[in-house]
Amino acid sequence: MLTELKREAYEANVALPRHGLINLTFGNASAVDRARGIFAIKPSGVDYAALKPANMVLVDLEGKKVEGKLNPSSDTPTHRRLFLAFQHIGGVVHTHSSHATAFAQAGRAIPIFGTTHADYFNGDIPVTRKMTPKEIGGGAYEWETGNVILECFKNLDPLDFPAVLVNRHAPFTWGKSVAKAVEVAVAVECIAHMAFMSLQLDPKLKAIEPALLAKHFKRKHGPGAYYGQPGAAH
Amino acid sequence: MLTELKREAYEANVALPRHGLINLTFGNASAVDRARGIFAIKPSGVDYAALKPANMVLVDLEGKKVEGKLNPSSDTPTHRRLFLAFQHIGGVVHTHSSHATAFAQAGRAIPIFGTTHADYFNGDIPVTRKMTPKEIGGGAYEWETGNVILECFKNLDPLDFPAVLVNRHAPFTWGKSVAKAVEVAVAVECIAHMAFMSLQLDPKLKAIEPALLAKHFKRKHGPGAYYGQPGAAH
Amino acid sequence: MLTELKREAYEANVALPRHGLINLTFGNASAVDRARGIFAIKPSGVDYAALKPANMVLVDLEGKKVEGKLNPSSDTPTHRRLFLAFQHIGGVVHTHSSHATAFAQAGRAIPIFGTTHADYFNGDIPVTRKMTPKEIGGGAYEWETGNVILECFKNLDPLDFPAVLVNRHAPFTWGKSVAKAVEVAVAVECIAHMAFMSLQLDPKLKAIEPALLAKHFKRKHGPGAYYGQPGAAH
Amino acid sequence: MLTELKREAYEANVALPRHGLINLTFGNASAVDRARGIFAIKPSGVDYAALKPANMVLVDLEGKKVEGKLNPSSDTPTHRRLFLAFQHIGGVVHTHSSHATAFAQAGRAIPIFGTTHADYFNGDIPVTRKMTPKEIGGGAYEWETGNVILECFKNLDPLDFPAVLVNRHAPFTWGKSVAKAVEVAVAVECIAHMAFMSLQLDPKLKAIEPALLAKHFKRKHGPGAYYGQPGAAH
Repeated sequence: MLTELKREAYEANVALPRHGLINLTFGNASAVDRARGIFAIKPSGVDYAALKPANMVLVDLEGKKVEGKLNPSSDTPTHRRLFLAFQHIGGVVHTHSSHATAFAQAGRAIPIFGTTHADYFNGDIPVTRKMTPKEIGGGAYEWETGNVILECFKNLDPLDFPAVLVNRHAPFTWGKSVAKAVEVAVAVECIAHMAFMSLQLDPKLKAIEPALLAKHFKRKHGPGAYYGQPGAAH
Repeated sequence: MLTELKREAYEANVALPRHGLINLTFGNASAVDRARGIFAIKPSGVDYAALKPANMVLVDLEGKKVEGKLNPSSDTPTHRRLFLAFQHIGGVVHTHSSHATAFAQAGRAIPIFGTTHADYFNGDIPVTRKMTPKEIGGGAYEWETGNVILECFKNLDPLDFPAVLVNRHAPFTWGKSVAKAVEVAVAVECIAHMAFMSLQLDPKLKAIEPALLAKHFKRKHGPGAYYGQPGAAH
Repeated sequence: MLTELKREAYEANVALPRHGLINLTFGNASAVDRARGIFAIKPSGVDYAALKPANMVLVDLEGKKVEGKLNPSSDTPTHRRLFLAFQHIGGVVHTHSSHATAFAQAGRAIPIFGTTHADYFNGDIPVTRKMTPKEIGGGAYEWETGNVILECFKNLDPLDFPAVLVNRHAPFTWGKSVAKAVEVAVAVECIAHMAFMSLQLDPKLKAIEPALLAKHFKRKHGPGAYYGQPGAAH
Repeated sequence: MLTELKREAYEANVALPRHGLINLTFGNASAVDRARGIFAIKPSGVDYAALKPANMVLVDLEGKKVEGKLNPSSDTPTHRRLFLAFQHIGGVVHTHSSHATAFAQAGRAIPIFGTTHADYFNGDIPVTRKMTPKEIGGGAYEWETGNVILECFKNLDPLDFPAVLVNRHAPFTWGKSVAKAVEVAVAVECIAHMAFMSLQLDPKLKAIEPALLAKHFKRKHGPGAYYGQPGAAH
């Protein structure tokens, strides 16, 4: 069932350690089929080297497992929460990539300092507020992790800001496809590394100027985009 | 004799440089057979590229070599001290992995700043006190290294805190199996790297909140654990 | 047409990720044929793994595409601007390599602290001023990026300073050949990394002494050069 | 002529980029035959990938090339100066490895903070004074580089301190064999990286305590050494 969807989710999962974004089993990727309301996600705690497309677990948007012998990732409710709220995304990726996680642990947004960042994000990469003991301990921790992410996006378009740092935890990224969510996860780690160093060179460094942000973001996104080849996805 | 135990110890030793935890010959791993009171450990000063399962040296828990042409690791008495004191561990790993060793050299515990850390440790990764000239020079330096580690664990469960930094020296890790001790060694280096960067982003950063620590630690450990697959070891 | 020129440009482009200078599609290289007034450049937004020599786009020095099915890199006008102004260069490389980009984002030149730097540059690696909203938004952003680079070189020989940091953006490098421009891109990233660390060891560190700068630069450049083999390019 | 010596020098040279100690052509290694008073050294400016044992240049201790079509490394007089002064060494290695060079550029010795360092050095890794304009420009720059190194070793045994940082430049290492000099070059870079991070964790960090330094250094060196296998070189 949904062989192609499982293959896409599989390809995204195994790309994560290949890009150096994952140590051990710290991460997961999922791809959704909007027509059927089903997503494919990594099984929990399984080594990347041992993954196969057929291991992907199918879960519906109500949270019920519809296929798979293994338990889905413990982060499944977070992915589900994001798929329900962000109607235009096709995939979600979660990593503990080192530099992005260092910002998350410090509870700091990643400030937008240059054009690399502006090629992907229309501003800082947001960080959630800290979760409350009740949200953490009330029995729906991973679902509430999704809710605290959504709070950040009340006034933000998730395709203008395709990533978030969960406070004390690590980044989640998304995109129109799960392959795009992987690309954003690579970009987030690279952007975090460079922002970290720029901050060390100048602890009071200001954000990129608005005209340059707008230029780079729009060069790749929206009706006037001219980066890449006609018809290619960004 | 004990072919399987030697193979386990061998696999753990050669995994260390593969994970980037070891330069030159700075490290060693050992696996114990509790029924026979014997452990298998790396020979001293031998290149990882030249190791074979048959090179592993067998030593009993009284410290007597029971098989092997080569000298065991000079750190053998430290491993032995830990096996004697921590009854529930099956393997010990010692590395000089860069970020963890930087904390050890500075005499600082690795503070618990995020969920990656809380997935493995129930608090900060402890650092020993400095050893005295008498402990260092009295003829049993490596055994005394074990004793100074044990001082840290008077009130700590070694399976809740499966690693320590020896002051001025480097990390030791352990686990129910030597393979698990290798996994913890990977996690410790990754956690140290991220803690180092979080401290640079905020030199006064506070520890993770207790509810989030408890949630992540218990998600993976103890009776209510739900991470991974049923019956799989953590 | 110009098969050899396209091959040279191709080789330079694929060398960039191999040297760890490029993440995703953040970069491009071009090679010029001065006799014909044509340069070969990477197509826009194409993965390095999918590149072939035949994909290289040929553009003339008036900016007209003369061969190629794909759109040339969106940075093509910057390359063209540099080829027109710097008559003695044969290739241009643009990367977002991490440490050099961290300096660019912070708007800081890379200070010359040692002989590694002096082997390639006759002083600090310059950083441009920030571009104005009019330069950014006036419809010729990439051409104006070239102009702001040229401002830095009013009083500098581009072969004495074969790289620049575009403020808020990233490095451009060049050389007598595009292969040399790749070599300089490797050197710039390495120099940036070491300067970053030297600054952390001593935030007030002064530049290298003039006699040592002159010695190392001239050991490799100009009539008295004696590094390498007779007749070999530097 | 001296086929084995050239092979040793070749193996040492190609090991340098494999250990991540060399970018581009920033480095060289040499091995000496004391009986004949001849050493084999890398040719100048040749890519590591293109090196062959037969390319090694033979130079005698008076500085005359005795075999080889190519020019020897421009650093040859520094190697020669060290071979003449340090009678018990068999090989010299020069790299621009990043972290060690960052200390050299800042004019700082690498402070001895832990046992990894004490396993190789009997104290801080020294840094030379700056060279004078006369030493630099007087026509014997590379020979004078050797002399400024020797000034540091008036009261130090070069086998107790098998490396030095040349101020504003980079490290030189040595050992009883050139293979040992390569091993020390790996250790120096690793030690520099960890010292750099320990200093960031505690900018006022004191040196390792004397008893622990003596223990670790003597565990590997001198009559009471017990690390490794009997009869193996350290």
